[in-house]
Amino acid sequence: MNQPYLPHLPLPAALVKELGQRFGKRFSTSQAVRDQHGRDESVHPAAAPDAVVFAESTDDVAEAVRLCHTYRVPIIPFGAGSSVEGHLLAIHGGVNIDLTGMNRIITVHREDLDATVQPGVTRKQLNAELHDTGLFFPIDPGADASMGGMAATRASGTNAVRYGTMRENVLGMTVVLADGRIIRTGGRARKSSAGYDLTRLFIGSEGTLGIITELTVKLYPVPEAISSAVCAFPSVDAAVDTVIQTIQLGVPVARIELLDTLTISAVNRYSKTTLKEAPTLFFEFHGSPTSVEEQATTVQALALDQGGMNFEWATRPEDRSRLWQARHDAYFACLQLKPGSRAFPTDVCVPISRLAECIHATNEDIARSSLPIALFGHVGDGNFHLVVLIDPANPQDVTEAESINNAVVERALSMEGTCTGEHGVGIGKQKFLVAEHGEGAVEVMRALKRALDPDNLLNPGKILP
Amino acid sequence: MNQPYLPHLPLPAALVKELGQRFGKRFSTSQAVRDQHGRDESVHPAAAPDAVVFAESTDDVAEAVRLCHTYRVPIIPFGAGSSVEGHLLAIHGGVNIDLTGMNRIITVHREDLDATVQPGVTRKQLNAELHDTGLFFPIDPGADASMGGMAATRASGTNAVRYGTMRENVLGMTVVLADGRIIRTGGRARKSSAGYDLTRLFIGSEGTLGIITELTVKLYPVPEAISSAVCAFPSVDAAVDTVIQTIQLGVPVARIELLDTLTISAVNRYSKTTLKEAPTLFFEFHGSPTSVEEQATTVQALALDQGGMNFEWATRPEDRSRLWQARHDAYFACLQLKPGSRAFPTDVCVPISRLAECIHATNEDIARSSLPIALFGHVGDGNFHLVVLIDPANPQDVTEAESINNAVVERALSMEGTCTGEHGVGIGKQKFLVAEHGEGAVEVMRALKRALDPDNLLNPGKILP
Repeated sequence: MNQPYLPHLPLPAALVKELGQRFGKRFSTSQAVRDQHGRDESVHPAAAPDAVVFAESTDDVAEAVRLCHTYRVPIIPFGAGSSVEGHLLAIHGGVNIDLTGMNRIITVHREDLDATVQPGVTRKQLNAELHDTGLFFPIDPGADASMGGMAATRASGTNAVRYGTMRENVLGMTVVLADGRIIRTGGRARKSSAGYDLTRLFIGSEGTLGIITELTVKLYPVPEAISSAVCAFPSVDAAVDTVIQTIQLGVPVARIELLDTLTISAVNRYSKTTLKEAPTLFFEFHGSPTSVEEQATTVQALALDQGGMNFEWATRPEDRSRLWQARHDAYFACLQLKPGSRAFPTDVCVPISRLAECIHATNEDIARSSLPIALFGHVGDGNFHLVVLIDPANPQDVTEAESINNAVVERALSMEGTCTGEHGVGIGKQKFLVAEHGEGAVEVMRALKRALDPDNLLNPGKILP
Repeated sequence: MNQPYLPHLPLPAALVKELGQRFGKRFSTSQAVRDQHGRDESVHPAAAPDAVVFAESTDDVAEAVRLCHTYRVPIIPFGAGSSVEGHLLAIHGGVNIDLTGMNRIITVHREDLDATVQPGVTRKQLNAELHDTGLFFPIDPGADASMGGMAATRASGTNAVRYGTMRENVLGMTVVLADGRIIRTGGRARKSSAGYDLTRLFIGSEGTLGIITELTVKLYPVPEAISSAVCAFPSVDAAVDTVIQTIQLGVPVARIELLDTLTISAVNRYSKTTLKEAPTLFFEFHGSPTSVEEQATTVQALALDQGGMNFEWATRPEDRSRLWQARHDAYFACLQLKPGSRAFPTDVCVPISRLAECIHATNEDIARSSLPIALFGHVGDGNFHLVVLIDPANPQDVTEAESINNAVVERALSMEGTCTGEHGVGIGKQKFLVAEHGEGAVEVMRALKRALDPDNLLNPGKILP
């Protein structure tokens, strides 16, 4: 994690000149702008790009990429900067293409339940725009991430248990390739068997195969009824068993989130809530009033069997918002447990039958550790996070966090799980890729990278070990 | 369609010898066996492979592929033989690898709602095996296709409107690459952001990038209540408008299928049913008893508004089976409209808002044609088929069917749809690929093919024009 990045050549003067001519004030080599584009939410050391282009269109991106390709200079796409695995760090230098100015919602097809957006549109912006349409976009990773970034990391979050991840919710994209060519993948039909699935190839490719400059995503009718609830449990095991039974019964729950005691106490302090400080599940049910009622009754019965205490309900939109804001702030709340610390997050996901065992063993790791560690996550998918609080300047903290992460990942892989359910590989998860997929599959990934980016210019040093 | 396939070299004697030594009686060059493996359900002229290997394991497949790779001989995977676009035709000769002997259900994880199967397992076989588990596999393309073939063509069918296609329902696969290497893609976690989505790359690749030798697929709890219904309408437009409103309201209907009057009359004759000979929707609702009731009430009201006649209900399993068997037999029923004919199927899929217009205009094509043409399909997805009945030996029939197909595809593409919703490209849809995706995207597909199969040995001549 703290390895120094390799030194790299400065940008060719001719490229700087050409980018300056093409983009004028939308091209910057100022240290402040570079620094701002060289850090994310991760514990990985910052690494500033050599320059930043502020793109406003697909043609801007294509032109910037073409120029960088001519001079064989690395290119790093930049969205909300909310990644937690170092995805945007310019570890080999190069030009950062800031896509936040591409924040236009191009079309909303109400009748087809889809929208086409530029990559800098954030999920909250999209949902605000959809407010009067009766539709919404469900993928919600907590942070107000950009749609392009969410597609690039195959993001998911709290609603995935019902609505799927970015993998299931992008119909088509416009992508700029490593040499500046512009292609269109997918379309607006709900399904197609017309050739290789290029859309899914670019989703989760973290800017290493192409730069997403437009996305068409699925929308859903806002459910007639929505109900949220919290329920405290006597133990994490009891909470997790409730989750497992809910999923196995096929209850179409929209959200089912676990927060452990430490997380709840952090949330109470940060969000001024008064939740009982115990392992807690946050639920949300979507559907018709009777369907929501039915789901809630079933899940309450399951929870009660596991010693779950009373459900506290939130049905008014403002109460639900407050509840989920508290859930989303859990990450920041945990950071306040040790002021000045950084969060080292883990992100494993396992088959649901192994979830209780996996979390149970992980809690033993937590008990043995000297660091404050909060556990929470999207348990309906089998996905949970640890937030290990470290002082990144303290090598002992870093070593201990890494060793916990290694243990958790190793355990998840032994259970046929994955090292990253939703954060992506970036820099931090590379070392697990061969263990998870095997050398052969990783070699296929390398072959795809070589085929689409033979000069290794697109976000080099990410994903592939 | 009727172009003669290029002549090709006979198999090298040394390869025949080595395959014979390795596979014994499971290797055949007999004309009868070859002929049997050189035709599918399509109108494309048969093209027999030079030999057939009957594989029983991943290692068998890998060994056969390795040998073919050594001698640079084409390899064609073979499942149920139910493809309708010539996917399995040995147009460049080569060795057919028959996977029907790999028909073992390896594991069913009830608690994780997944199963791992060999590629020769058919969907009916899997569901029969699941009978006592309370789970089922929903993807249902009508034919009792093999799971490997369904993944290879990104199949879907009647349940896709609720449960998605093979794209959404395969978690991971074992794949043999062009040189015989064996890789594993994906895993058993419900979601992952760990690198490129190799699973989705092989789904829909029609045997041109690798041979699927094992699949892990999602299962679903059998719904507590299932109800099927048929409803006749005064016009196709009225039926389609009912579909569109159902989808736009977000009713989680499990199946919603349109059969036009000609199809219904063919079904009545073939399946001895007494359905009213009018444009008809077949519905199926899944859920709790109250949810099914609610869905049915909503949809009935929508249908009534469109002049829909009484719903005829089927709730007993045997009645539902009879109904859906009749739907699935529509293809064969239509063939009987003109005994001795073959079916030239179309397969477009459009955004739902364009469906009424698309079908309406297509009905004008039908009215102008001299051939019998039935229209039916998975209208909840925006996907419908024409079955154009032709005498393949009559060049006029062929020309007319092709010209109708061209018109239908051109129309669908102009509506941001796809030339193939679920059948795949095979031979028949290649000429539309550039029009649908653009030259740039097709060039990316070619680059992927070159990266994974540089000698063009895997099912050559399919997908890519």
